[in-house]
Amino acid sequence: MSKRKDTKSMNDWNGGALVVIGGHEAKSPDDDRVILSAVVERTRRRDGPLLVITAATQLPDEVGQEYIGVFRDLGLDNVEQLDVRTREDANAEACETRVRAASALFFTGGDQLRITSQIGGTRFYDAMLAAFRDGLTIAGTSAGAAAISDTMVVSGSGEESFTAYGIEMAAGLGLLSGVIIDSHFAERGRIGRLLGCVAENPKNLGIGIDENTAIVVEPDRTLCVLGTGAIYIVDGSDISYTNVSEERAGRAVTIRDVRLHVLAHGDRYSLDDRVRHPHTHS
Amino acid sequence: MSKRKDTKSMNDWNGGALVVIGGHEAKSPDDDRVILSAVVERTRRRDGPLLVITAATQLPDEVGQEYIGVFRDLGLDNVEQLDVRTREDANAEACETRVRAASALFFTGGDQLRITSQIGGTRFYDAMLAAFRDGLTIAGTSAGAAAISDTMVVSGSGEESFTAYGIEMAAGLGLLSGVIIDSHFAERGRIGRLLGCVAENPKNLGIGIDENTAIVVEPDRTLCVLGTGAIYIVDGSDISYTNVSEERAGRAVTIRDVRLHVLAHGDRYSLDDRVRHPHTHS
Repeated sequence: MSKRKDTKSMNDWNGGALVVIGGHEAKSPDDDRVILSAVVERTRRRDGPLLVITAATQLPDEVGQEYIGVFRDLGLDNVEQLDVRTREDANAEACETRVRAASALFFTGGDQLRITSQIGGTRFYDAMLAAFRDGLTIAGTSAGAAAISDTMVVSGSGEESFTAYGIEMAAGLGLLSGVIIDSHFAERGRIGRLLGCVAENPKNLGIGIDENTAIVVEPDRTLCVLGTGAIYIVDGSDISYTNVSEERAGRAVTIRDVRLHVLAHGDRYSLDDRVRHPHTHS
Repeated sequence: MSKRKDTKSMNDWNGGALVVIGGHEAKSPDDDRVILSAVVERTRRRDGPLLVITAATQLPDEVGQEYIGVFRDLGLDNVEQLDVRTREDANAEACETRVRAASALFFTGGDQLRITSQIGGTRFYDAMLAAFRDGLTIAGTSAGAAAISDTMVVSGSGEESFTAYGIEMAAGLGLLSGVIIDSHFAERGRIGRLLGCVAENPKNLGIGIDENTAIVVEPDRTLCVLGTGAIYIVDGSDISYTNVSEERAGRAVTIRDVRLHVLAHGDRYSLDDRVRHPHTHS
């Protein structure tokens, strides 16, 4: 029973927010650090520390220290690295205890499969889900952003159009259902692969996030955009035709009648309204 | 009067077809040269030569000889270079005569402003429009594709999202009205800039064309896709909100409710149906 409870859909969570970052968020004091400042602000709403989770990166020491330095520079003293390199680390009681006591988690970039393969199904994971329902803020950048949804993009070309069976996906952390997130979006020319992901199953909304750009998703599943770039919402509700399931592997596919929104800093969007009112231009 | 006739909208032309190519079309006998073969096939429907117009390139000799070699290899002997380097060249009587006698024109890549600044308003231009109405096929690749529409993209970043006033446009050759064409589309991550162009004036349909991909536009303004990539049709008819005119220069903009189609080899689309029946999913 407890397992079932821990893995139920996040649709009904009423707790923490998500800060989902497209990568390369501003870190220098010379730049407007609106995104990492939002992580700091969310962390301060509770008592525990911000834990920088370096599971994704092959350089956990360097990346961990860099983020701790930036967050301290932003005035947050209560920040620590949680260095998870193996499933054994993620199943350690001390790890579970630290996650339960945290105010926020920040997943760095690297490889999203490292995050899910090391953390999925561990005591860390269960503690994270429980704390998230209870108000834990979870942030992630780049690979740490991609890992947040139910199903995540693992690989697939940027800078070319989607070809049949041209993308690899895997199960993500399941923190945001009904959404597929792609990062470094304009910079790596990823519209083609996100369109393909959505066409493969239009129940999912595709969200592409540029570098130095983020979405803050509130528990009511409304989001607000932060940063200098744009986010792209790919809504496949109205797709009238696609041959993604029929076209031969490696061939460009057809996708008709995608609804696309480009949103910038300060814009808001309701993830559920598109489901409840697919023809409302929210 | 004659001037007015020569510059009237091409909406009512009933003559030649356009072959609009996204750049880097296959030229080697080892590859499927479906695009350049289509140019050859169209050329053969009339008696005159195919003229390779090298106005866009700074290397007219090399580029001209390359295309002549490829077209001959495809079995077309009646192919010549028309080497236009100045407005004086484009106003020469011999140039006008050659254009009037041609079966097809092929504009190479390079810089689209070289095409329009050298040819616009010359005897070449007037002869081309008249011959086009009479059945001349006009093909263009890369810059030669961008130059075809009424208004053309001159510069604007790829691989980043559209920012207010972030694009430079100029008057194109006016061979295809109501459309803005962008080439090297997925390869150079140009969805952002094409969305911006369309949001600036949604009367225009944006068409992004991948490399080794083309559209053949018939006189009835239906198009068919050729090649290995995709084309993207950005239809702004339903845009419910944009701040492109209000946002400060350099800031990412908001564009809501764009309709997007991804089309691949063999797909067809009617440019006018979207205007006549904006809510029909054609």
